[in-house]
Amino acid sequence: MKLLRYGPKGQERPGLLDAEGRVRSLSGIIPDLAGEALLPGSLRRIAALDEAALPLVEGRPQQGLRLGPCVAGTQKFIAIGLNYADHAAESGMAVPAEPVVFNKWTSSISGPDDDVELPRGSVKTDWEVELGVVIGQGGRYIDEARALEHVAGYCVVNDVSEREWQTERGGTWDKGKGFDTFGPVGPWLVTPDEAGDVAALGMWLEVDGKRMQTGSTATMIFGVAEIIAYVSRFLSLTPGDILTTGTPPGVGMGMRPPRYLKAGEVVRLGIDGLGVQTQRVVAPR
Amino acid sequence: MKLLRYGPKGQERPGLLDAEGRVRSLSGIIPDLAGEALLPGSLRRIAALDEAALPLVEGRPQQGLRLGPCVAGTQKFIAIGLNYADHAAESGMAVPAEPVVFNKWTSSISGPDDDVELPRGSVKTDWEVELGVVIGQGGRYIDEARALEHVAGYCVVNDVSEREWQTERGGTWDKGKGFDTFGPVGPWLVTPDEAGDVAALGMWLEVDGKRMQTGSTATMIFGVAEIIAYVSRFLSLTPGDILTTGTPPGVGMGMRPPRYLKAGEVVRLGIDGLGVQTQRVVAPR
Repeated sequence: MKLLRYGPKGQERPGLLDAEGRVRSLSGIIPDLAGEALLPGSLRRIAALDEAALPLVEGRPQQGLRLGPCVAGTQKFIAIGLNYADHAAESGMAVPAEPVVFNKWTSSISGPDDDVELPRGSVKTDWEVELGVVIGQGGRYIDEARALEHVAGYCVVNDVSEREWQTERGGTWDKGKGFDTFGPVGPWLVTPDEAGDVAALGMWLEVDGKRMQTGSTATMIFGVAEIIAYVSRFLSLTPGDILTTGTPPGVGMGMRPPRYLKAGEVVRLGIDGLGVQTQRVVAPR
Repeated sequence: MKLLRYGPKGQERPGLLDAEGRVRSLSGIIPDLAGEALLPGSLRRIAALDEAALPLVEGRPQQGLRLGPCVAGTQKFIAIGLNYADHAAESGMAVPAEPVVFNKWTSSISGPDDDVELPRGSVKTDWEVELGVVIGQGGRYIDEARALEHVAGYCVVNDVSEREWQTERGGTWDKGKGFDTFGPVGPWLVTPDEAGDVAALGMWLEVDGKRMQTGSTATMIFGVAEIIAYVSRFLSLTPGDILTTGTPPGVGMGMRPPRYLKAGEVVRLGIDGLGVQTQRVVAPR
Protein backbone atom coordinates (compact mmCIF):
# COMPACT_ATOMS: atom_id res chain seq x y z
CA MET A 1 0.00 0.00 0.00
CA LYS A 2 0.96 3.58 -0.66
CA LEU A 3 -0.55 5.76 2.03
CA LEU A 4 -0.49 9.53 1.81
CA ARG A 5 -1.85 12.78 3.16
CA TYR A 6 -3.35 15.33 0.77
CA GLY A 7 -4.70 18.84 0.97
CA PRO A 8 -3.56 22.28 2.12
CA LYS A 9 -0.81 22.62 4.68
CA GLY A 10 -2.08 21.91 8.17
CA GLN A 11 -5.40 20.55 6.86
CA GLU A 12 -4.18 17.32 5.27
CA ARG A 13 -6.46 14.30 5.15
CA PRO A 14 -5.45 10.66 4.94
CA GLY A 15 -5.68 8.73 1.70
CA LEU A 16 -4.14 6.01 -0.37
CA LEU A 17 -2.87 5.76 -3.89
CA ASP A 18 -4.98 3.33 -5.90
CA ALA A 19 -3.82 1.04 -8.69
CA GLU A 20 -4.55 3.75 -11.27
CA GLY A 21 -2.49 6.37 -9.44
CA ARG A 22 -5.50 8.23 -8.11
CA VAL A 23 -6.09 9.22 -4.51
CA ARG A 24 -8.78 7.48 -2.47
CA SER A 25 -9.91 9.05 0.76
CA LEU A 26 -9.37 7.28 4.08
CA SER A 27 -11.13 10.02 6.05
CA GLY A 28 -14.02 7.70 6.88
CA ILE A 29 -11.62 5.03 8.14
CA ILE A 30 -8.95 6.76 10.21
CA PRO A 31 -8.66 10.31 11.58
CA ASP A 32 -5.16 10.72 10.16
CA LEU A 33 -2.00 8.77 9.36
CA ALA A 34 -0.83 9.19 12.92
CA GLY A 35 -0.67 7.41 16.24
CA GLU A 36 -2.87 4.34 16.49
CA ALA A 37 -3.70 4.38 12.78
CA LEU A 38 -0.10 3.32 12.17
CA LEU A 39 -0.27 0.20 14.34
CA PRO A 40 -0.15 -3.19 12.62
CA GLY A 41 -3.83 -4.01 13.20
CA SER A 42 -4.94 -0.70 11.72
CA LEU A 43 -2.74 -1.13 8.65
CA ARG A 44 -4.11 -4.65 8.16
CA ARG A 45 -7.67 -3.32 8.29
CA ILE A 46 -6.87 -0.67 5.69
CA ALA A 47 -5.20 -3.26 3.47
CA ALA A 48 -8.34 -5.39 3.63
CA LEU A 49 -10.60 -2.58 2.36
CA ASP A 50 -12.13 -2.66 -1.10
CA GLU A 51 -10.17 0.22 -2.58
CA ALA A 52 -12.76 0.85 -5.29
CA ALA A 53 -15.35 1.54 -2.62
CA LEU A 54 -13.33 4.38 -1.10
CA PRO A 55 -14.23 7.91 -2.26
CA LEU A 56 -12.13 9.21 -5.13
CA VAL A 57 -10.34 12.48 -4.43
CA GLU A 58 -10.29 15.03 -7.21
CA GLY A 59 -6.95 15.89 -8.74
CA ARG A 60 -3.82 13.92 -9.41
CA PRO A 61 -1.28 13.73 -6.62
CA GLN A 62 1.77 15.90 -7.27
CA GLN A 63 -0.06 17.40 -10.28
CA GLY A 64 -2.21 20.04 -8.68
CA LEU A 65 -3.18 18.01 -5.64
CA ARG A 66 -0.74 18.91 -2.90
CA LEU A 67 0.66 16.16 -0.75
CA GLY A 68 1.63 16.77 2.86
CA PRO A 69 4.18 14.76 4.80
CA CYS A 70 3.04 11.14 4.60
CA VAL A 71 2.80 10.81 8.37
CA ALA A 72 1.40 13.12 11.06
CA GLY A 73 1.90 13.47 14.78
CA THR A 74 5.61 12.75 14.56
CA GLN A 75 7.09 13.27 18.00
CA LYS A 76 10.66 12.41 17.09
CA PHE A 77 12.55 12.84 13.83
CA ILE A 78 15.67 10.81 14.47
CA ALA A 79 18.52 10.89 12.02
CA ILE A 80 21.52 8.65 11.45
CA GLY A 81 24.68 10.32 10.20
CA LEU A 82 27.57 9.08 8.07
CA ASN A 83 25.80 5.81 7.38
CA TYR A 84 27.29 5.34 3.91
CA ALA A 85 31.02 4.73 3.92
CA ASP A 86 31.64 6.73 0.75
CA HIS A 87 29.60 9.70 2.06
CA ALA A 88 31.63 9.70 5.28
CA ALA A 89 34.76 9.87 3.13
CA GLU A 90 33.51 12.80 1.05
CA SER A 91 32.58 14.63 4.28
CA GLY A 92 36.08 14.13 5.60
CA MET A 93 34.77 12.14 8.55
CA ALA A 94 35.67 8.66 9.79
CA VAL A 95 33.34 5.72 9.27
CA PRO A 96 31.59 5.42 12.62
CA ALA A 97 32.02 2.34 14.83
CA GLU A 98 28.36 2.56 15.85
CA PRO A 99 25.48 4.64 14.50
CA VAL A 100 25.77 8.42 14.78
CA VAL A 101 22.44 9.70 16.07
CA PHE A 102 21.22 13.26 15.73
CA ASN A 103 17.98 15.16 15.74
CA LYS A 104 15.89 16.98 13.19
CA TRP A 105 13.42 19.30 14.95
CA THR A 106 9.90 18.10 14.13
CA SER A 107 8.94 21.61 13.01
CA SER A 108 11.19 21.04 9.99
CA ILE A 109 8.83 18.40 8.55
CA SER A 110 7.19 19.42 5.28
CA GLY A 111 5.44 17.95 2.28
CA PRO A 112 7.45 16.18 -0.41
CA ASP A 113 6.98 18.97 -2.97
CA ASP A 114 6.84 21.99 -0.70
CA ASP A 115 9.39 24.76 -1.15
CA VAL A 116 12.68 24.48 0.68
CA GLU A 117 13.22 27.86 2.27
CA LEU A 118 16.76 29.16 2.68
CA PRO A 119 17.16 30.51 6.21
CA ARG A 120 18.31 34.09 6.72
CA GLY A 121 22.07 34.17 6.80
CA SER A 122 22.45 30.71 5.33
CA VAL A 123 25.31 30.21 2.91
CA LYS A 124 25.65 26.43 2.92
CA THR A 125 22.25 24.80 2.49
CA ASP A 126 22.73 21.30 1.16
CA TRP A 127 20.72 18.23 0.16
CA GLU A 128 20.67 14.57 1.24
CA VAL A 129 18.41 11.87 -0.24
CA GLU A 130 17.61 9.33 2.47
CA LEU A 131 15.51 6.29 3.20
CA GLY A 132 12.95 7.19 5.87
CA VAL A 133 11.49 4.62 8.24
CA VAL A 134 8.18 5.38 9.93
CA ILE A 135 7.55 3.63 13.23
CA GLY A 136 4.25 1.81 13.77
CA GLN A 137 4.35 -0.11 17.02
CA GLY A 138 6.61 1.75 19.42
CA GLY A 139 8.93 0.33 22.03
CA ARG A 140 12.36 0.39 23.57
CA TYR A 141 15.08 -2.21 24.01
CA ILE A 142 13.81 -3.66 20.74
CA ASP A 143 15.46 -6.89 19.56
CA GLU A 144 17.13 -6.52 16.20
CA ALA A 145 15.61 -9.83 15.10
CA ARG A 146 12.11 -8.42 15.55
CA ALA A 147 12.85 -4.78 14.81
CA LEU A 148 11.17 -4.73 11.39
CA GLU A 149 7.85 -5.59 13.05
CA HIS A 150 7.95 -2.01 14.38
CA VAL A 151 7.97 -0.47 10.89
CA ALA A 152 4.73 1.02 9.56
CA GLY A 153 6.34 1.87 6.26
CA TYR A 154 9.11 3.54 4.30
CA CYS A 155 9.39 6.86 2.52
CA VAL A 156 11.76 9.29 0.88
CA VAL A 157 13.30 11.98 3.10
CA ASN A 158 15.39 14.95 2.02
CA ASP A 159 17.62 15.62 5.02
CA VAL A 160 18.21 19.26 4.10
CA SER A 161 21.22 20.56 6.04
CA GLU A 162 22.87 23.91 6.63
CA ARG A 163 26.51 22.90 6.77
CA GLU A 164 27.96 25.98 8.40
CA TRP A 165 25.44 25.70 11.20
CA GLN A 166 25.91 21.94 11.42
CA THR A 167 29.67 21.90 11.69
CA GLU A 168 31.16 25.35 12.23
CA ARG A 169 29.04 26.96 14.93
CA GLY A 170 29.92 24.89 17.97
CA GLY A 171 28.09 22.12 19.74
CA THR A 172 26.08 19.44 18.04
CA TRP A 173 24.77 19.13 14.52
CA ASP A 174 21.24 20.04 15.62
CA LYS A 175 21.52 23.73 14.68
CA GLY A 176 21.92 22.92 11.02
CA LYS A 177 19.37 20.17 10.54
CA GLY A 178 16.01 21.45 11.68
CA PHE A 179 15.05 24.76 10.09
CA ASP A 180 11.49 24.98 8.80
CA THR A 181 11.10 23.08 5.47
CA PHE A 182 14.35 21.14 6.03
CA GLY A 183 12.46 17.85 6.30
CA PRO A 184 10.41 16.93 3.20
CA VAL A 185 8.83 13.54 3.92
CA GLY A 186 6.92 11.51 1.32
CA PRO A 187 5.25 11.38 -1.18
CA TRP A 188 3.96 8.04 0.08
CA LEU A 189 4.27 5.88 3.14
CA VAL A 190 4.93 2.54 1.47
CA THR A 191 4.08 -0.43 3.64
CA PRO A 192 6.79 -3.07 4.09
CA ASP A 193 5.00 -5.72 2.02
CA GLU A 194 5.10 -3.39 -0.98
CA ALA A 195 8.47 -1.75 -0.34
CA GLY A 196 10.22 -5.08 -0.71
CA ASP A 197 13.88 -5.46 0.20
CA VAL A 198 14.80 -2.01 1.48
CA ALA A 199 18.44 -3.08 1.68
CA ALA A 200 18.73 -2.85 -2.11
CA LEU A 201 16.92 0.25 -3.34
CA GLY A 202 18.41 2.64 -5.85
CA MET A 203 18.34 6.30 -4.80
CA TRP A 204 19.16 9.53 -6.58
CA LEU A 205 18.97 13.30 -6.35
CA GLU A 206 19.33 16.01 -8.94
CA VAL A 207 19.53 19.80 -8.80
CA ASP A 208 18.14 21.67 -11.83
CA GLY A 209 18.22 18.41 -13.75
CA LYS A 210 21.84 17.63 -13.00
CA ARG A 211 22.46 14.35 -11.22
CA MET A 212 24.20 14.90 -7.89
CA GLN A 213 23.60 11.74 -5.88
CA THR A 214 23.41 8.20 -7.19
CA GLY A 215 23.44 5.44 -4.65
CA SER A 216 21.80 2.41 -3.20
CA THR A 217 20.67 1.45 0.25
CA ALA A 218 22.84 -1.62 -0.35
CA THR A 219 25.86 0.42 0.77
CA MET A 220 24.41 1.46 4.10
CA ILE A 221 26.76 0.65 6.98
CA PHE A 222 24.02 -0.01 9.55
CA GLY A 223 20.80 -1.52 8.23
CA VAL A 224 17.25 -0.62 9.19
CA ALA A 225 16.75 -3.38 11.78
CA GLU A 226 20.08 -2.63 13.41
CA ILE A 227 19.30 1.09 13.57
CA ILE A 228 15.90 0.54 15.16
CA ALA A 229 17.34 -1.80 17.77
CA TYR A 230 20.27 0.51 18.46
CA VAL A 231 18.27 3.71 18.78
CA SER A 232 15.70 2.06 21.04
CA ARG A 233 18.38 1.60 23.70
CA PHE A 234 18.64 5.38 24.07
CA LEU A 235 15.03 6.46 23.70
CA SER A 236 11.48 5.10 23.41
CA LEU A 237 10.05 4.91 19.93
CA THR A 238 6.40 5.89 19.47
CA PRO A 239 4.00 5.55 16.52
CA GLY A 240 4.75 8.14 13.85
CA ASP A 241 8.37 8.65 14.79
CA ILE A 242 10.57 8.95 11.72
CA LEU A 243 14.05 7.50 11.42
CA THR A 244 16.06 8.81 8.52
CA THR A 245 18.98 6.59 7.78
CA GLY A 246 21.77 8.53 6.13
CA THR A 247 22.75 9.58 2.65
CA PRO A 248 24.97 8.22 -0.12
CA PRO A 249 27.73 10.35 -1.71
CA GLY A 250 27.10 13.41 -3.80
CA VAL A 251 26.16 16.14 -1.36
CA GLY A 252 27.21 19.70 -2.08
CA MET A 253 29.60 19.79 0.87
CA GLY A 254 31.59 16.94 -0.67
CA MET A 255 32.24 18.66 -4.00
CA ARG A 256 35.48 20.44 -4.88
CA PRO A 257 34.71 23.26 -4.59
CA PRO A 258 31.61 22.78 -2.41
CA ARG A 259 28.35 23.73 -4.09
CA TYR A 260 25.26 24.78 -2.19
CA LEU A 261 21.63 25.52 -3.01
CA LYS A 262 20.52 28.87 -4.36
CA ALA A 263 17.06 30.38 -4.56
CA GLY A 264 15.31 29.39 -7.75
CA GLU A 265 16.92 25.98 -8.06
CA VAL A 266 14.81 22.84 -8.15
CA VAL A 267 15.73 19.67 -6.27
CA ARG A 268 14.31 16.32 -7.37
CA LEU A 269 15.01 13.10 -5.54
CA GLY A 270 13.68 9.60 -5.37
CA ILE A 271 14.12 6.06 -4.15
CA ASP A 272 13.07 2.96 -6.12
CA GLY A 273 9.45 2.14 -5.34
CA LEU A 274 9.06 4.95 -2.81
CA GLY A 275 8.32 7.79 -5.21
CA VAL A 276 9.79 11.15 -6.13
CA GLN A 277 9.98 14.52 -4.38
CA THR A 278 10.37 17.90 -6.10
CA GLN A 279 11.28 21.04 -4.17
CA ARG A 280 11.80 24.56 -5.33
CA VAL A 281 14.44 26.43 -3.34
CA VAL A 282 13.20 29.84 -2.25
CA ALA A 283 14.88 32.90 -0.75
CA PRO A 284 14.65 33.66 2.96
CA ARG A 285 11.31 35.05 4.08
CA MET B 1 0.80 32.39 39.01
CA LYS B 2 1.99 28.89 39.60
CA LEU B 3 0.38 26.61 37.03
CA LEU B 4 0.64 22.86 37.26
CA ARG B 5 -0.67 19.54 36.02
CA TYR B 6 -1.86 16.93 38.51
CA GLY B 7 -3.05 13.35 38.40
CA PRO B 8 -1.84 9.97 37.17
CA LYS B 9 0.71 9.76 34.40
CA GLY B 10 -0.88 10.39 31.02
CA GLN B 11 -4.12 11.60 32.61
CA GLU B 12 -2.95 14.88 34.09
CA ARG B 13 -5.33 17.79 34.38
CA PRO B 14 -4.50 21.48 34.53
CA GLY B 15 -4.56 23.40 37.77
CA LEU B 16 -2.99 26.20 39.71
CA LEU B 17 -1.47 26.51 43.14
CA ASP B 18 -3.52 28.85 45.30
CA ALA B 19 -2.25 31.21 47.98
CA GLU B 20 -2.65 28.47 50.61
CA GLY B 21 -0.62 25.95 48.63
CA ARG B 22 -3.64 23.94 47.53
CA VAL B 23 -4.45 22.91 43.99
CA ARG B 24 -7.38 24.50 42.18
CA SER B 25 -8.68 22.87 39.04
CA LEU B 26 -8.51 24.66 35.70
CA SER B 27 -10.29 21.84 33.86
CA GLY B 28 -13.32 24.01 33.26
CA ILE B 29 -11.20 26.78 31.83
CA ILE B 30 -8.59 25.18 29.54
CA PRO B 31 -8.24 21.64 28.17
CA ASP B 32 -4.63 21.39 29.30
CA LEU B 33 -1.52 23.51 29.84
CA ALA B 34 -0.61 23.14 26.20
CA GLY B 35 -0.80 24.92 22.87
CA GLU B 36 -3.17 27.89 22.81
CA ALA B 37 -3.70 27.80 26.56
CA LEU B 38 -0.12 29.05 26.90
CA LEU B 39 -0.61 32.14 24.76
CA PRO B 40 -0.52 35.54 26.47
CA GLY B 41 -4.26 36.17 26.18
CA SER B 42 -5.08 32.82 27.73
CA LEU B 43 -2.68 33.36 30.62
CA ARG B 44 -4.17 36.82 31.23
CA ARG B 45 -7.65 35.29 31.37
CA ILE B 46 -6.52 32.71 33.90
CA ALA B 47 -4.80 35.39 35.98
CA ALA B 48 -8.05 37.35 36.08
CA LEU B 49 -10.06 34.46 37.51
CA ASP B 50 -11.32 34.47 41.08
CA GLU B 51 -9.11 31.71 42.41
CA ALA B 52 -11.44 30.98 45.32
CA ALA B 53 -14.19 30.11 42.85
CA LEU B 54 -12.16 27.38 41.18
CA PRO B 55 -12.81 23.82 42.41
CA LEU B 56 -10.42 22.62 45.10
CA VAL B 57 -8.53 19.44 44.26
CA GLU B 58 -8.12 16.90 47.02
CA GLY B 59 -4.64 16.20 48.28
CA ARG B 60 -1.58 18.32 48.70
CA PRO B 61 0.72 18.64 45.71
CA GLN B 62 3.91 16.63 46.13
CA GLN B 63 2.41 15.06 49.26
CA GLY B 64 0.25 12.32 47.84
CA LEU B 65 -1.04 14.27 44.88
CA ARG B 66 1.20 13.48 41.95
CA LEU B 67 2.30 16.29 39.69
CA GLY B 68 3.00 15.72 36.02
CA PRO B 69 5.29 17.83 33.88
CA CYS B 70 3.99 21.41 34.18
CA VAL B 71 3.45 21.72 30.44
CA ALA B 72 1.94 19.34 27.87
CA GLY B 73 2.14 19.00 24.11
CA THR B 74 5.82 19.89 24.02
CA GLN B 75 7.06 19.44 20.49
CA LYS B 76 10.65 20.48 21.10
CA PHE B 77 12.80 20.14 24.20
CA ILE B 78 15.75 22.32 23.32
CA ALA B 79 18.80 22.38 25.52
CA ILE B 80 21.72 24.76 25.86
CA GLY B 81 25.05 23.26 26.86
CA LEU B 82 28.02 24.64 28.76
CA ASN B 83 26.17 27.83 29.61
CA TYR B 84 27.91 28.38 32.94
CA ALA B 85 31.59 29.16 32.62
CA ASP B 86 32.58 27.20 35.72
CA HIS B 87 30.58 24.15 34.57
CA ALA B 88 32.34 24.23 31.21
CA ALA B 89 35.63 24.22 33.10
CA GLU B 90 34.68 21.23 35.27
CA SER B 91 33.59 19.36 32.11
CA GLY B 92 36.97 20.03 30.54
CA MET B 93 35.32 21.94 27.70
CA ALA B 94 35.94 25.45 26.40
CA VAL B 95 33.52 28.28 27.09
CA PRO B 96 31.48 28.49 23.89
CA ALA B 97 31.59 31.57 21.67
CA GLU B 98 27.88 31.17 20.94
CA PRO B 99 25.22 28.96 22.52
CA VAL B 100 25.67 25.20 22.20
CA VAL B 101 22.31 23.76 21.18
CA PHE B 102 21.31 20.15 21.63
CA ASN B 103 18.16 18.09 21.87
CA LYS B 104 16.38 16.16 24.57
CA TRP B 105 13.88 13.74 23.02
CA THR B 106 10.39 14.76 24.11
CA SER B 107 9.69 11.22 25.29
CA SER B 108 12.14 11.90 28.13
CA ILE B 109 9.78 14.42 29.75
CA SER B 110 8.48 13.33 33.15
CA GLY B 111 6.91 14.72 36.28
CA PRO B 112 9.04 16.59 38.81
CA ASP B 113 8.91 13.81 41.40
CA ASP B 114 8.73 10.77 39.12
CA ASP B 115 11.43 8.14 39.36
CA VAL B 116 14.54 8.57 37.27
CA GLU B 117 15.12 5.20 35.64
CA LEU B 118 18.67 4.08 34.95
CA PRO B 119 18.86 2.74 31.39
CA ARG B 120 20.12 -0.77 30.79
CA GLY B 121 23.86 -0.68 30.38
CA SER B 122 24.21 2.80 31.84
CA VAL B 123 27.23 3.42 34.05
CA LYS B 124 27.37 7.23 34.02
CA THR B 125 23.93 8.69 34.71
CA ASP B 126 24.35 12.23 36.01
CA TRP B 127 22.27 15.21 37.17
CA GLU B 128 21.97 18.86 36.10
CA VAL B 129 19.72 21.42 37.76
CA GLU B 130 18.60 23.93 35.14
CA LEU B 131 16.29 26.86 34.59
CA GLY B 132 13.58 25.80 32.12
CA VAL B 133 11.80 28.31 29.87
CA VAL B 134 8.40 27.39 28.45
CA ILE B 135 7.41 29.10 25.22
CA GLY B 136 4.01 30.75 24.95
CA GLN B 137 3.75 32.66 21.69
CA GLY B 138 5.90 30.92 19.11
CA GLY B 139 7.93 32.45 16.35
CA ARG B 140 11.22 32.55 14.54
CA TYR B 141 13.76 35.31 13.89
CA ILE B 142 12.70 36.68 17.25
CA ASP B 143 14.29 39.98 18.31
CA GLU B 144 16.23 39.71 21.52
CA ALA B 145 14.65 42.94 22.75
CA ARG B 146 11.20 41.35 22.57
CA ALA B 147 12.16 37.76 23.25
CA LEU B 148 10.78 37.63 26.78
CA GLU B 149 7.29 38.32 25.40
CA HIS B 150 7.46 34.76 24.06
CA VAL B 151 7.84 33.21 27.52
CA ALA B 152 4.79 31.56 29.10
CA GLY B 153 6.70 30.81 32.26
CA TYR B 154 9.70 29.29 33.99
CA CYS B 155 10.27 26.00 35.75
CA VAL B 156 12.88 23.68 37.18
CA VAL B 157 14.36 21.05 34.84
CA ASN B 158 16.68 18.20 35.75
CA ASP B 159 18.68 17.63 32.57
CA VAL B 160 19.52 14.01 33.43
CA SER B 161 22.41 12.87 31.26
CA GLU B 162 24.17 9.60 30.53
CA ARG B 163 27.75 10.80 30.12
CA GLU B 164 29.20 7.78 28.37
CA TRP B 165 26.45 7.94 25.77
CA GLN B 166 26.72 11.71 25.52
CA THR B 167 30.44 11.94 24.93
CA GLU B 168 32.07 8.56 24.27
CA ARG B 169 29.79 6.85 21.76
CA GLY B 170 30.33 8.95 18.66
CA GLY B 171 28.28 11.64 17.04
CA THR B 172 26.24 14.21 18.90
CA TRP B 173 25.21 14.45 22.55
CA ASP B 174 21.65 13.36 21.71
CA LYS B 175 22.18 9.71 22.62
CA GLY B 176 22.84 10.55 26.23
CA LYS B 177 20.20 13.17 26.92
CA GLY B 178 16.83 11.71 26.06
CA PHE B 179 16.16 8.38 27.71
CA ASP B 180 12.72 7.98 29.29
CA THR B 181 12.52 9.87 32.63
CA PHE B 182 15.62 11.97 31.83
CA GLY B 183 13.55 15.16 31.73
CA PRO B 184 11.74 15.97 34.98
CA VAL B 185 9.92 19.29 34.39
CA GLY B 186 8.13 21.24 37.14
CA PRO B 187 6.67 21.30 39.76
CA TRP B 188 5.11 24.56 38.61
CA LEU B 189 5.09 26.71 35.55
CA VAL B 190 5.72 30.10 37.16
CA THR B 191 4.54 33.02 35.07
CA PRO B 192 7.07 35.79 34.41
CA ASP B 193 5.33 38.34 36.62
CA GLU B 194 5.79 36.03 39.58
CA ALA B 195 9.17 34.55 38.70
CA GLY B 196 10.79 37.98 38.92
CA ASP B 197 14.33 38.51 37.71
CA VAL B 198 15.33 35.10 36.35
CA ALA B 199 18.88 36.35 35.87
CA ALA B 200 19.48 36.16 39.63
CA LEU B 201 17.93 32.96 40.98
CA GLY B 202 19.74 30.66 43.36
CA MET B 203 19.75 27.00 42.31
CA TRP B 204 20.87 23.83 44.05
CA LEU B 205 20.83 20.05 43.80
CA GLU B 206 21.53 17.35 46.36
CA VAL B 207 21.90 13.57 46.23
CA ASP B 208 20.86 11.67 49.34
CA GLY B 209 20.93 14.92 51.25
CA LYS B 210 24.45 15.88 50.21
CA ARG B 211 24.74 19.18 48.40
CA MET B 212 26.23 18.71 44.93
CA GLN B 213 25.32 21.82 42.98
CA THR B 214 25.07 25.35 44.30
CA GLY B 215 24.78 28.12 41.77
CA SER B 216 22.88 31.06 40.45
CA THR B 217 21.42 31.94 37.11
CA ALA B 218 23.48 35.13 37.52
CA THR B 219 26.51 33.23 36.18
CA MET B 220 24.83 32.12 32.96
CA ILE B 221 26.90 33.03 29.91
CA PHE B 222 23.95 33.53 27.56
CA GLY B 223 20.78 34.89 29.15
CA VAL B 224 17.20 33.82 28.47
CA ALA B 225 16.36 36.54 25.93
CA GLU B 226 19.59 35.96 24.05
CA ILE B 227 18.97 32.20 23.95
CA ILE B 228 15.42 32.60 22.63
CA ALA B 229 16.53 34.99 19.92
CA TYR B 230 19.51 32.82 18.99
CA VAL B 231 17.64 29.53 18.82
CA SER B 232 14.82 31.05 16.78
CA ARG B 233 17.26 31.63 13.91
CA PHE B 234 17.68 27.87 13.53
CA LEU B 235 14.15 26.61 14.17
CA SER B 236 10.59 27.81 14.75
CA LEU B 237 9.42 27.93 18.33
CA THR B 238 5.89 26.77 19.09
CA PRO B 239 3.74 27.01 22.23
CA GLY B 240 4.81 24.46 24.80
CA ASP B 241 8.37 24.11 23.58
CA ILE B 242 10.81 23.93 26.47
CA LEU B 243 14.24 25.55 26.48
CA THR B 244 16.53 24.35 29.22
CA THR B 245 19.37 26.71 29.73
CA GLY B 246 22.39 24.91 31.15
CA THR B 247 23.68 23.92 34.54
CA PRO B 248 26.06 25.39 37.12
CA PRO B 249 29.03 23.41 38.48
CA GLY B 250 28.72 20.33 40.63
CA VAL B 251 27.72 17.55 38.25
CA GLY B 252 29.01 14.03 38.88
CA MET B 253 31.15 14.05 35.76
CA GLY B 254 33.12 17.00 37.11
CA MET B 255 34.12 15.33 40.39
CA ARG B 256 37.50 13.70 41.06
CA PRO B 257 36.83 10.85 40.80
CA PRO B 258 33.54 11.18 38.88
CA ARG B 259 30.49 10.07 40.81
CA TYR B 260 27.31 8.87 39.14
CA LEU B 261 23.80 7.95 40.24
CA LYS B 262 22.97 4.55 41.68
CA ALA B 263 19.61 2.88 42.14
CA GLY B 264 18.07 3.80 45.47
CA GLU B 265 19.55 7.28 45.66
CA VAL B 266 17.30 10.31 45.92
CA VAL B 267 17.92 13.52 43.98
CA ARG B 268 16.43 16.81 45.19
CA LEU B 269 16.81 20.05 43.31
CA GLY B 270 15.31 23.49 43.27
CA ILE B 271 15.48 27.03 42.03
CA ASP B 272 14.44 30.09 44.08
CA GLY B 273 10.74 30.73 43.60
CA LEU B 274 10.28 27.90 41.10
CA GLY B 275 9.87 25.02 43.54
CA VAL B 276 11.57 21.74 44.34
CA GLN B 277 11.78 18.38 42.56
CA THR B 278 12.48 15.03 44.25
CA GLN B 279 13.37 11.93 42.24
CA ARG B 280 14.16 8.43 43.34
CA VAL B 281 16.72 6.70 41.13
CA VAL B 282 15.56 3.23 40.13
CA ALA B 283 17.25 0.27 38.50
CA PRO B 284 16.76 -0.51 34.82
CA ARG B 285 13.42 -2.08 33.98
